[in-house]
Amino acid sequence: MSIQETLNNAFTKWMEGEGPEARIVISSRVRLARNLAGQLFPHLMSQETGQAVVRLVQDAIADPAVREKLGPLFYAPLNDLSLLERQILMEKHLISPQHAQDEQAPRGVILRPDEAVSIMVNEEDHLRVQVLLPAFQLEAAWRMANLVDDVLESKLDFAFDEQYGYLSCCPTNVGTGLRASVMMHLPALAMTNQASGVFTALSKVGFVVRGFYGEGTEAKGNLFQVSNQLTLGLSEIEILDRLMTVSRQVIEQEQMGRRSLMKERPSQIEDMVFRAYGILTNARLLNSEETMFYLSCLRLGIDLGLLHNVSNRTLNELLVRTRAAYLQGDNKGAMDAFNRSLKRAAIIRKALAPDPGAQNNRSGPESLT
Amino acid sequence: MSIQETLNNAFTKWMEGEGPEARIVISSRVRLARNLAGQLFPHLMSQETGQAVVRLVQDAIADPAVREKLGPLFYAPLNDLSLLERQILMEKHLISPQHAQDEQAPRGVILRPDEAVSIMVNEEDHLRVQVLLPAFQLEAAWRMANLVDDVLESKLDFAFDEQYGYLSCCPTNVGTGLRASVMMHLPALAMTNQASGVFTALSKVGFVVRGFYGEGTEAKGNLFQVSNQLTLGLSEIEILDRLMTVSRQVIEQEQMGRRSLMKERPSQIEDMVFRAYGILTNARLLNSEETMFYLSCLRLGIDLGLLHNVSNRTLNELLVRTRAAYLQGDNKGAMDAFNRSLKRAAIIRKALAPDPGAQNNRSGPESLT
Repeated sequence: MSIQETLNNAFTKWMEGEGPEARIVISSRVRLARNLAGQLFPHLMSQETGQAVVRLVQDAIADPAVREKLGPLFYAPLNDLSLLERQILMEKHLISPQHAQDEQAPRGVILRPDEAVSIMVNEEDHLRVQVLLPAFQLEAAWRMANLVDDVLESKLDFAFDEQYGYLSCCPTNVGTGLRASVMMHLPALAMTNQASGVFTALSKVGFVVRGFYGEGTEAKGNLFQVSNQLTLGLSEIEILDRLMTVSRQVIEQEQMGRRSLMKERPSQIEDMVFRAYGILTNARLLNSEETMFYLSCLRLGIDLGLLHNVSNRTLNELLVRTRAAYLQGDNKGAMDAFNRSLKRAAIIRKALAPDPGAQNNRSGPESLT
Repeated sequence: MSIQETLNNAFTKWMEGEGPEARIVISSRVRLARNLAGQLFPHLMSQETGQAVVRLVQDAIADPAVREKLGPLFYAPLNDLSLLERQILMEKHLISPQHAQDEQAPRGVILRPDEAVSIMVNEEDHLRVQVLLPAFQLEAAWRMANLVDDVLESKLDFAFDEQYGYLSCCPTNVGTGLRASVMMHLPALAMTNQASGVFTALSKVGFVVRGFYGEGTEAKGNLFQVSNQLTLGLSEIEILDRLMTVSRQVIEQEQMGRRSLMKERPSQIEDMVFRAYGILTNARLLNSEETMFYLSCLRLGIDLGLLHNVSNRTLNELLVRTRAAYLQGDNKGAMDAFNRSLKRAAIIRKALAPDPGAQNNRSGPESLT
């Protein structure tokens, strides 16, 4: 397993598209912020300190006892990768946008070959352990993150305070260092204008709603990430329980919304789904935003039993394959927005065509793609 | 041949989609306004006078000498048809919108079985002889109209003045009583914003540009009808020559426009054509206006060699089959806009599907159509 394989392959664990509540929940994520005792936080540290942290972490994951418990993990130094390559890792949700942008200090990412476990090294904290699983699997993600944490802690000295808990660079992560999130597809709530009300209610009880790429990103394609705001004052189990409870409420509201849409305006919904299918399988130019929207329509169409020849896995993979960096990385060169739109459309047509030969006959020669 | 066959069958001669300049010219029309001497114009006449005119005309077309020269013609009394049925004749371009709406006086239409010749009886004038042929065939249409005129004149006494020529109800038709028109598909002129300039120039030299359904209708689907304004002061041949000349100029400009679009923005044009195809073959609801636009995109796509499995004949037929009255007449009952959109979309999917079985598999069950 190498970082190049990760970069060349759009697919990653969370895209499987199967599992509990997979009709609404794309993925579940748990991350733990951890820091090594006696080392400056990444934003303050020198090259040497940064390198020392990397070395300690590399030694830890190379330890036979660690490998025995966690399986093989490999370390990839981000300093060796281009910005475009780091952005691909970000688009796959394996590292944060910040970790992709950052050019300072030695930094890297540790990946399990299936990419369900990724550990950012020297991001905001020394370690950010992330477990990302498909569908609604918060508990499983938590168990895995907890195991990784325990095993690493047996080899590394984590900064911990009896009163506050785990110490972190930013005060919002002090305590458990736990942030858990659920990525949900909520087209019915969006279409019935219930989304903002639901999100306001969530924010009042300590949850944050973000877009597909986390903090600072808009919710495109009706994809919303719900996560806990607080990491301090509650136990890990309490945090997870509360997130699971509110997630189930949101899932239920979305299900009700879908049922009522299909009851009240079935033809309009069918029309929206099939138009999206018609456009995605025929367009020659597709920008990123409309792509997210039409993929959302297809995802809804699958759930409503309208579309049978498209899988959620294909849609999940397309979410990443049609992002700017992935499109360009694949091409080994910079590409302007027009050419990205051209390539995005070609990739989508190919991915959704039930039979590339038939598609070609049906729509004439693809002379420009 | 009966009027019911005409009503049930959307196809009519001008829809053939083949002939000179068929890539741009949909149809060519020549009509002659004629009135019987000694009879009041239709808007002034009584039921009895109206009936007398109808009888004279019926006798004329039943005359063996007339049948020998013109072939069989049949008379359909419009008074016996519902408004919806009359609107279908209008949507097929066999009678005028005014003749379809009018509820006064005995009135009718004479049709040749192929519907290339239609003669409105007691519309604005006693007789309106129309010849409507596919593609750019103004001369052929004129020869046929002239023959019909000569043959009818051998049996009927037309109101004619040595100084003014043929007399008509409205002064704009006095003289030759000739109006000739060419229905053109001008997407490139429309897309490059040249259309209004061209039409202003045409109006300065005595031509009028109207939409697909003539006077008072907007140009939807990039279909424009160019016709002569004047009927007096020029001979028939001069009128036709001038219309042919300006039509050829418009055709040439449209051809140049298409070439330049394909040279300057081929991907955008391909995208427009294939999106239209994707939408028309998948949408579950289509309103009349967007249908006209998407059909225009397909027509352009055929000309540009992008689409191979759709014919202009199919598109021409769909123009009429998707009109409000035809949709309802077909259904033998009134239908609201929503249900018309539903039926319009179903008709279009079926007409454009290369293989209905494959279409069905591809896009899931058509549960609501």
